[in-house]
Amino acid sequence: MSARDSIKLLVPNLPQGHELMPRLLQMDARRVYTNFGPLVQEFEAALGQALQSQSPAATGQPSTVHCVTLSSGTAALELTLMAMNLPQGSQVLLPSYTFAATALAVLRCGLVPVFSDVDEFTWQLTPAIARDAVSRMDFSLVLPVATFACPFEGQVWDRFSDETGVPVLIDAAAGFGNQTVGLKTPVCFSLHATKPFGVGEGGFMASANGDLVAQVRRLSNFGFEKGQVVRLGINAKLSEYAAAIGLVQLDRWAGLQTQRRVRWQRFSSELTKVPDLALQAGFGLNDIPSNVVVRHVRAEQLRLQCAAAGIETRSWYCPPLHQQAAFREMPVLAYLEQQKLSQSEHLGQFTIGLPWHDDLTDGDITSISTQLQAVCQSPRTVRS
Amino acid sequence: MSARDSIKLLVPNLPQGHELMPRLLQMDARRVYTNFGPLVQEFEAALGQALQSQSPAATGQPSTVHCVTLSSGTAALELTLMAMNLPQGSQVLLPSYTFAATALAVLRCGLVPVFSDVDEFTWQLTPAIARDAVSRMDFSLVLPVATFACPFEGQVWDRFSDETGVPVLIDAAAGFGNQTVGLKTPVCFSLHATKPFGVGEGGFMASANGDLVAQVRRLSNFGFEKGQVVRLGINAKLSEYAAAIGLVQLDRWAGLQTQRRVRWQRFSSELTKVPDLALQAGFGLNDIPSNVVVRHVRAEQLRLQCAAAGIETRSWYCPPLHQQAAFREMPVLAYLEQQKLSQSEHLGQFTIGLPWHDDLTDGDITSISTQLQAVCQSPRTVRS
Repeated sequence: MSARDSIKLLVPNLPQGHELMPRLLQMDARRVYTNFGPLVQEFEAALGQALQSQSPAATGQPSTVHCVTLSSGTAALELTLMAMNLPQGSQVLLPSYTFAATALAVLRCGLVPVFSDVDEFTWQLTPAIARDAVSRMDFSLVLPVATFACPFEGQVWDRFSDETGVPVLIDAAAGFGNQTVGLKTPVCFSLHATKPFGVGEGGFMASANGDLVAQVRRLSNFGFEKGQVVRLGINAKLSEYAAAIGLVQLDRWAGLQTQRRVRWQRFSSELTKVPDLALQAGFGLNDIPSNVVVRHVRAEQLRLQCAAAGIETRSWYCPPLHQQAAFREMPVLAYLEQQKLSQSEHLGQFTIGLPWHDDLTDGDITSISTQLQAVCQSPRTVRS
Repeated sequence: MSARDSIKLLVPNLPQGHELMPRLLQMDARRVYTNFGPLVQEFEAALGQALQSQSPAATGQPSTVHCVTLSSGTAALELTLMAMNLPQGSQVLLPSYTFAATALAVLRCGLVPVFSDVDEFTWQLTPAIARDAVSRMDFSLVLPVATFACPFEGQVWDRFSDETGVPVLIDAAAGFGNQTVGLKTPVCFSLHATKPFGVGEGGFMASANGDLVAQVRRLSNFGFEKGQVVRLGINAKLSEYAAAIGLVQLDRWAGLQTQRRVRWQRFSSELTKVPDLALQAGFGLNDIPSNVVVRHVRAEQLRLQCAAAGIETRSWYCPPLHQQAAFREMPVLAYLEQQKLSQSEHLGQFTIGLPWHDDLTDGDITSISTQLQAVCQSPRTVRS
C-alpha cells in the first residue's frame, strides 16, 4: 500500500455483471420477476441445503431446514415475530449491544424490547444471561444476536427453550456460514450487501418448522390465502433479480469462504502482536467473523492513529441501543435500573472495527497491525 | 392465435439482461450495492424529472418533484403515512374497491381504515364522496386510489385539502405515466413487475415537499440520523440493482408508452362492439390503463366464455376489502352500516379483467372482442 492510498473498511464482494448473465437470460425467457418465482424457489431450496450441510449430523439437527426469502433481514425478524403469535405488549429480551434493526422489529410488532447486557467475552446475550433475566421478569421471547457472525452452538437455545418454556428467535444477521439451525429455534439472516453473503437488499428466515416458514411466506405477500387477506401482512417478497444474484453468490460461496479463512488466520495472528488487544470469543475453528472488531482500552488512540495512516475504522453499536434517542424513552428502563449494562457501554466505547473485506492484501494486514502496535509502544501513551 | 394457444392475462415487459449490462458494469466498477447509492440517486432524480415533465406548466404544479425510492409500493404508503405524523388511532378514509395493500399500510401505522364506496363511473373514491364523508365523520387523512392507473387531475385533491383542512395521500400504485403530482398531495407509486412501469419489487413516493421526502428516506433506513435512531423506521431501501433496472426501464419508457397508446386505442375501439359493456371513465386522451377491466351485467358468462376460448381473465378486488376476512372485523362497520358500499360490491362481481400486455397482438384483441360479442349475441343468454 502506498502512503497515499487508504485501506477501506468494507468493500462488498458481489457477483460481477457477466456472472449474472446466465440467470438473467433465464429470466428473459421466463418473464417472471417476482411473486415466489422459480429463482426464489430455487434459492430458498439451496439456502436450506447449505444450512443443512453446515449442520453436523448429530442428534438435535433438523432433517430439513426450510427457508423463506424476504426483502430484508429486518423484515425477516418482523414477520417471524408476527408468525410466532406473541401476546401484544409482551416483553422480548434482546441485547443492547447490537444493530437497531433488532429492537425496531420488536417494536413494530407491538412488543416491548427489554435490553440486556452482553457477555464479557462473546459480546452476546448468552443463555446464562437470559436464564437470569427470565427468572426475574416475564418474557414472551428471547432474541439473542449472533454478533459479528459469532454463532451460537446449534442446540444451546433449543435447550434453553425446553428448560424455561420461553421461545427463542436468533438474529444471525451476518451469520450465514457460521450459524446453524437447530430443531426448534428459528434463525433470521440478512442478505444486505455489507454482509459476508449479500445480494444487495434482502434477508431470509430458516427453521426446522415448515409451518412457521409457510406463515412467514404468507405474511410477506400481504397475508393472502386463497385470494383473500387472512392476516395483516406486508409486501416483503424478494424479487427474482435478487434471487438470481443470491444463486450466483452461492456458487461463489465455497471459494469466498476458503479465501476468507486464510485471510482471517493471517489477520488474527497479526493481531496477537498488539499488546492488550482482545478479540471476540466464541468463534469455531472454521468460522469467519463478519467484521474484525477488536477491544482495547486505548481504542480512541487506535482510531486516531488509523485515521492518520489512512486506515478506515468504525465504532460499531456506539452508543448501545439503550442509550440511543429513539429507545431511551422506551418502557424498558425499569429493568435497566436493576442491572447496569456495563459491558454494552464498555464495548461501544472500547472496541474498534478494522478493515475487513476480500480486497484486503497481506500488506494491508501488516500495515494495520503495525499501526496498532505503534500506539501501544508509543512512550507518549499513558497506559490505563 | 391458434386454437391451442392461450392468451395470457399479464406478461411483464422488463429490460432484457443485455440491456442491463452497461449499468451492471457501472456497479462492478463502483462496488456499491445499496444504502442510497449513486444509481438510486440517479433513478430518484430521473423519476422526479419524468413526473415534472408530465405535469402541464400551469399554476398549481410544483417547481420540483422530489422522489424517494423504496422496497415496495406498500412500504411507500406505510412510511409516508408515518412521516405525515397522523394521530395514532385516527381514521383514514379509503375506497373498499382496491388492493389490500392500501388498507394494510393504514393498519400497520396504527390508524383505522374506514372504507368508502366508489364512484359509479370512475370506480374511485372521488373528492365528492370524500366531501360527504368528512362532513359526517372525523378523518385525519383521505387516501384515494388511482384505480387501474386512472389518474386524478393534479389539483383536485389539493383543492379538497384546502377546503376541508384534511390532508390527502394518493395511492397511484399502477399510475406512473398518468398520475401527476400537485403542490400539496404526495403520491405513492409501485414498481412491482406487474405494473406498467416495474423493476421487479419496489416503489416510490413523490411530492413537492422535499422535507416529507427526506423524512420518508430516513424512515426507510431504520430512522437513522447522524448515526442514531431518532424515529422508529424500517429497512425499506431500494438496492442499486433495482435502481439499475429502473433506469434502463426509464430509457425504454417513451417507446413502451407509444406502443401501448396505439394498442389501447385499438382495444378500446374493438370493445365498443360488445353490447352493454362499460369501461372505467376518467382517463385522459393520452392516458393508458394499467389493466383492461370491463363492466358487464353478464360478467360471469364472459369469464366462462373466455376460459373456454383459452383467454385468461381475472376478477380484481373481489370481494371488495370490507368483505374480506381480515378487514370484516375491523372497527369500521359503524360507517358501513350508515352507507352501503353498493358500487364496490357490484364492481367486484360484475367486472372482468381482460388480457393486457405488450405481447398482445391485433389478432389477440380481435379474438377477445369476438368472444365477448358471442356471449352477448348467444340466443341461450337471457338478458338481465
